[in-house]
Amino acid sequence: MNTSTNPCINTPRHDGRTVDALRTVRITRHYTMHAEGSVLVEFGNTRVLCTASVEEKVPPHKRGSGEGWVTAEYGMLPRATHRRSDREAARGKQSGRTQEIQRLIGRSLRAVFDLKRLGERTLQIDCDVIQADGGTRTAAITGAWVAAHDAVTRLLQDGKLAASPITGAVAAVSVGIVGGRPVLDLDYAEDAACDTDMNVVMTGTGHFIELQGTAEGAAFSRSELDALLALAEQGIGQLLSLQQQALQQP
Amino acid sequence: MNTSTNPCINTPRHDGRTVDALRTVRITRHYTMHAEGSVLVEFGNTRVLCTASVEEKVPPHKRGSGEGWVTAEYGMLPRATHRRSDREAARGKQSGRTQEIQRLIGRSLRAVFDLKRLGERTLQIDCDVIQADGGTRTAAITGAWVAAHDAVTRLLQDGKLAASPITGAVAAVSVGIVGGRPVLDLDYAEDAACDTDMNVVMTGTGHFIELQGTAEGAAFSRSELDALLALAEQGIGQLLSLQQQALQQP
Amino acid sequence: MNTSTNPCINTPRHDGRTVDALRTVRITRHYTMHAEGSVLVEFGNTRVLCTASVEEKVPPHKRGSGEGWVTAEYGMLPRATHRRSDREAARGKQSGRTQEIQRLIGRSLRAVFDLKRLGERTLQIDCDVIQADGGTRTAAITGAWVAAHDAVTRLLQDGKLAASPITGAVAAVSVGIVGGRPVLDLDYAEDAACDTDMNVVMTGTGHFIELQGTAEGAAFSRSELDALLALAEQGIGQLLSLQQQALQQP
Amino acid sequence: MNTSTNPCINTPRHDGRTVDALRTVRITRHYTMHAEGSVLVEFGNTRVLCTASVEEKVPPHKRGSGEGWVTAEYGMLPRATHRRSDREAARGKQSGRTQEIQRLIGRSLRAVFDLKRLGERTLQIDCDVIQADGGTRTAAITGAWVAAHDAVTRLLQDGKLAASPITGAVAAVSVGIVGGRPVLDLDYAEDAACDTDMNVVMTGTGHFIELQGTAEGAAFSRSELDALLALAEQGIGQLLSLQQQALQQP
Amino acid sequence: MNTSTNPCINTPRHDGRTVDALRTVRITRHYTMHAEGSVLVEFGNTRVLCTASVEEKVPPHKRGSGEGWVTAEYGMLPRATHRRSDREAARGKQSGRTQEIQRLIGRSLRAVFDLKRLGERTLQIDCDVIQADGGTRTAAITGAWVAAHDAVTRLLQDGKLAASPITGAVAAVSVGIVGGRPVLDLDYAEDAACDTDMNVVMTGTGHFIELQGTAEGAAFSRSELDALLALAEQGIGQLLSLQQQALQQP
Amino acid sequence: MNTSTNPCINTPRHDGRTVDALRTVRITRHYTMHAEGSVLVEFGNTRVLCTASVEEKVPPHKRGSGEGWVTAEYGMLPRATHRRSDREAARGKQSGRTQEIQRLIGRSLRAVFDLKRLGERTLQIDCDVIQADGGTRTAAITGAWVAAHDAVTRLLQDGKLAASPITGAVAAVSVGIVGGRPVLDLDYAEDAACDTDMNVVMTGTGHFIELQGTAEGAAFSRSELDALLALAEQGIGQLLSLQQQALQQP
Repeated sequence: MNTSTNPCINTPRHDGRTVDALRTVRITRHYTMHAEGSVLVEFGNTRVLCTASVEEKVPPHKRGSGEGWVTAEYGMLPRATHRRSDREAARGKQSGRTQEIQRLIGRSLRAVFDLKRLGERTLQIDCDVIQADGGTRTAAITGAWVAAHDAVTRLLQDGKLAASPITGAVAAVSVGIVGGRPVLDLDYAEDAACDTDMNVVMTGTGHFIELQGTAEGAAFSRSELDALLALAEQGIGQLLSLQQQALQQP
Repeated sequence: MNTSTNPCINTPRHDGRTVDALRTVRITRHYTMHAEGSVLVEFGNTRVLCTASVEEKVPPHKRGSGEGWVTAEYGMLPRATHRRSDREAARGKQSGRTQEIQRLIGRSLRAVFDLKRLGERTLQIDCDVIQADGGTRTAAITGAWVAAHDAVTRLLQDGKLAASPITGAVAAVSVGIVGGRPVLDLDYAEDAACDTDMNVVMTGTGHFIELQGTAEGAAFSRSELDALLALAEQGIGQLLSLQQQALQQP
Repeated sequence: MNTSTNPCINTPRHDGRTVDALRTVRITRHYTMHAEGSVLVEFGNTRVLCTASVEEKVPPHKRGSGEGWVTAEYGMLPRATHRRSDREAARGKQSGRTQEIQRLIGRSLRAVFDLKRLGERTLQIDCDVIQADGGTRTAAITGAWVAAHDAVTRLLQDGKLAASPITGAVAAVSVGIVGGRPVLDLDYAEDAACDTDMNVVMTGTGHFIELQGTAEGAAFSRSELDALLALAEQGIGQLLSLQQQALQQP
Repeated sequence: MNTSTNPCINTPRHDGRTVDALRTVRITRHYTMHAEGSVLVEFGNTRVLCTASVEEKVPPHKRGSGEGWVTAEYGMLPRATHRRSDREAARGKQSGRTQEIQRLIGRSLRAVFDLKRLGERTLQIDCDVIQADGGTRTAAITGAWVAAHDAVTRLLQDGKLAASPITGAVAAVSVGIVGGRPVLDLDYAEDAACDTDMNVVMTGTGHFIELQGTAEGAAFSRSELDALLALAEQGIGQLLSLQQQALQQP
Repeated sequence: MNTSTNPCINTPRHDGRTVDALRTVRITRHYTMHAEGSVLVEFGNTRVLCTASVEEKVPPHKRGSGEGWVTAEYGMLPRATHRRSDREAARGKQSGRTQEIQRLIGRSLRAVFDLKRLGERTLQIDCDVIQADGGTRTAAITGAWVAAHDAVTRLLQDGKLAASPITGAVAAVSVGIVGGRPVLDLDYAEDAACDTDMNVVMTGTGHFIELQGTAEGAAFSRSELDALLALAEQGIGQLLSLQQQALQQP
Repeated sequence: MNTSTNPCINTPRHDGRTVDALRTVRITRHYTMHAEGSVLVEFGNTRVLCTASVEEKVPPHKRGSGEGWVTAEYGMLPRATHRRSDREAARGKQSGRTQEIQRLIGRSLRAVFDLKRLGERTLQIDCDVIQADGGTRTAAITGAWVAAHDAVTRLLQDGKLAASPITGAVAAVSVGIVGGRPVLDLDYAEDAACDTDMNVVMTGTGHFIELQGTAEGAAFSRSELDALLALAEQGIGQLLSLQQQALQQP
């Protein structure tokens, strides 16, 4: 399929967006009171609470290394979704999907952290989905970076760090091929209907940290891939700006 | 100790409240969009999201009985608390405390439900603590009843129920002996310092459903118990009114 | 309901007891040979083996504190009950009920222990139900205190303790509203039929340690509560005497 | 080593027994009230409660086969032993030792059961060690058979079975090489000191069902094995008589 | 970094390969005797046993759908790796990495399966790593497709299927940026040293099924991505030929 | 049954073997490249990979003792068997059978190890069944000893040990009564049909380490036992020779 000749390229999506439009994105800092960083991030109806907690210890593989650690956990409230899903704590284990997502968030954050400069402490990120409507993992990464930034600011203010260990920004968005055309930032309805779904994580300097594309239906061609990457690059650019705007609030 | 002669009875509490004052209570309905009932309940800084989900099936012990079931699960986001607590899903099991609380919520709701009239379906309550500052279980019960009410209203509107299975209201509050005097609705600081902590669950007609008193420090006398019960009765009266006000919103 | 005017107040219960009578209680010390304290406690047909084991270490939260710890575990043999229940070790987890009960036993014992005087060691209580006929948790608390006393005596005799860390006695009983009237020490048949079930734990000086009342059927009024508390106070008085008599045996 | 020329063959054992003497064995039927069969078996200080429960269903692999099933579970109270061992229900899994033993008990009982004649029901054996002093698994098998017999008698009396599915008796004993000489029915002290430990399960007609010998220290020779088997055969003969005597009680 | 100007593009890799060379690949069919399809696939020193088992049932979400299911599990023998890793069965859970990989294998295979044509049966793929030296997941996918093909051939020969449900071929390879230049099919030493690691899964018609790129060190640019994709496309082309050659053996 | 008069004693077995013949046994050393000892052992179609890994630490019960530890784990690839069995890692626990077998392997190896001479390190044996056709545990023990020997040789060569901690050889075989006659080294078909199955582990000096006999069908007599032991002794003699031959290869 050649996306550039798709006749429906200008038809609005089911929610009225153009193919290259993000949903309304909101980043609310200081959302809860205990965490060193606490951000509610909303991509349309998707709402994820991202907290960053500072712990003055490191996991075994970092002990005595002089380096810190950044890690993440992900969860979904049972009725964040259209149909209630089982509570993972009650079932006694996290699903493969949950583990995949939390490993992705952790790697994405670590890509912009200088662990040596963090010192022997852990930044524990928790991303909990309050309401899900597609794109929870990309919203989580985008919000988690802001929460991590707030936690680092606190460490700098408290004199526990001399210089920020954050080496750059990171944000993420999903793209996919829905009804034959590449679109940006899929909501749940689009995600359920799409042939290909790709999550892209990029730095503030336009480089890739993670790229995870999956053909749920038909396999995708190289030209489709190029179209998806272009959409992602553009969307992430906007998300990076929104992060900076949020950080300029008090 | 004779509470009636306590000289400090009129000294305000650490947050300025009188001994018989609730914290500011807010009940926000329709807080998330998927659940049949979804309520954010706030007792001061304590914030609990209570959702009620309707499932058209019952657990094994009710199959074929013609009766429904009402049950609850409880969780705490890892950084809802002052210090981060481990994620129960990651540890692979729910703590004894979590199980105690969710069993309490389930029993409290069932006490005002006619399971026969509910029909063979389950009302699954989820209470998830977004931010904790003492009294999460009593806030949860108070909010869960409103969420359950909304879910039942939906069933009535959809014609799935002919008459409401709800036989009355239920609300809950904590009371305790702090610094030698009985007080209503303890926040975390008071809870950590108190000698005795009691959770009281009552119906709209002033009867008891649950009474759970624990002497954390010194054991408590019968006269102290009487004073605590009087405070609870008064506080629950106010909570029952707030529930009704919330239900009158559209 | 006004219990004082109940016409059937003098009708004997299904096993011939008056409303305020305990079942036959037996406390057999030195029941097994390895534990520092080992007591078989019987409340009628309910038989619970309570052992107290001294361990010269403390859990992490007490390490280096100079304080000791008292904790309890509870179990039920699979065929202690009318119908066989699953073995918790085989299922791979303890039920919520089991955890609730063992937490209650632990708190009750700690209420009469001076942990500083115990020194950095743990008193591990195990309560295993050999045969169940209602009231297993109250029998367990009553017997566990005697087992704990024997273990402490052993520590004193061995010169490991200079003074007893036990600050008082503790005993427990259940009360409930059965067929409309408050009764003491429910057996299984009464427990299954009762509207309200309350477990009361008191010290030797007549103060409350725990109060756990649950309306299984109709909610209970304040006057019913008062009647139940009076019964409990009286029954616990007798249990405290029986504990002392048992301790006077060699 | 040739055991027949061992000079110390007539020296009494540490508890005064001769090499070929069982400890005092007691079999108490109807020990608890709920189970269809309930036997306390004592081999000296080893005390095991064996219950046999009838369940009117079979595990999946027997469904629709017209055959029944006999299975066993084994447990040890935490302080049945000299030093307290962790509660398996709290740890969340049964040890390899526990599983080995319960599989052995189940196989031993099934060897004397005609599962077709049992019909599609399960005989669930529970063997719980109240006090351990060596030989818990052999005591358990010996007691379990009596409990199973009582449960079958109940089924015959209730008219649920036309003929007994029990095809013979089964009993078990341990033998071992202690201090260079073969001895019968080891207690804990001997078990801890022995070079070889063997558990032998035999039928009423003198055939072997199970033979499990383990060299804990030095490997054992064929002549030592022969001496151990002779001791076991003699000891099991006595246990089979004691089972029959116990069954003749009302 | 612009890979096209990298001066070391022609320097051989640590094992002598050029940047665009696969390791020696071997595909051995009928490796074990019980499975319907059984393939040992070797990418250099990486050896994975892939079996395909036919089960005449489907998981719950497919019951009554008329469709079949294809799923995969992945494991690593404890000493497949340089240092022994814990056995997942002994630890009691599969790692996040394991779950990620087995989900990837399952999705990759399903992408070339017409589940309707498979009928209500499951093709269960097991990929067990006998020896690991990098690229175990891509070797597993490449081998699993051959094993699945053999299992389908068996179903066709047995007359259980009228037409093959396999709609195309699938193979996978890893690419990465090592020492600043893009290379094909990383072994363990390269994988441990690389900045970016990407696993690519493609169909026989040159379309993408999965694309998973991760910047372990520096983030990667669009031009680096393009270079990696070109290498992958070329390598997968060779693997697809090797699969066809293997299938032509008897 | 008197085996010596069995008329079919000279009839070949279903695979043509005489009653006293082993299957073809192959011992392949250096089968995988990472482990200090790595042996593929084949008893006919049964193939088990045995690796021995040296770890420079000991489990808690040996810390500070100056002694080392030898332990074993056992696993079966899901499709090693005729019908696929569940993956234990996915189910989240090892079966009772698995635990029994790995405990047996560990004890058998420790019987010929001087743990003091091993020093404070662990020899971790992993036995993974690639293909099963009866006798996996006896093949595992026989192969594990060779793998352990290779690992010890490596320690001696590296100067980490001054003298070998291995005090002798150990090998194992199964024997059983099939169709009324005792046979050596049962394959799966014979194992499934046999009345009695016995696993015998012996040292190089002809002494017993383990003897595990189970009557699956009819109980076995003393004379049958004697016949089985004679077969085992003879078969183990051959296995011990094959181990030595394998060790003479480079």
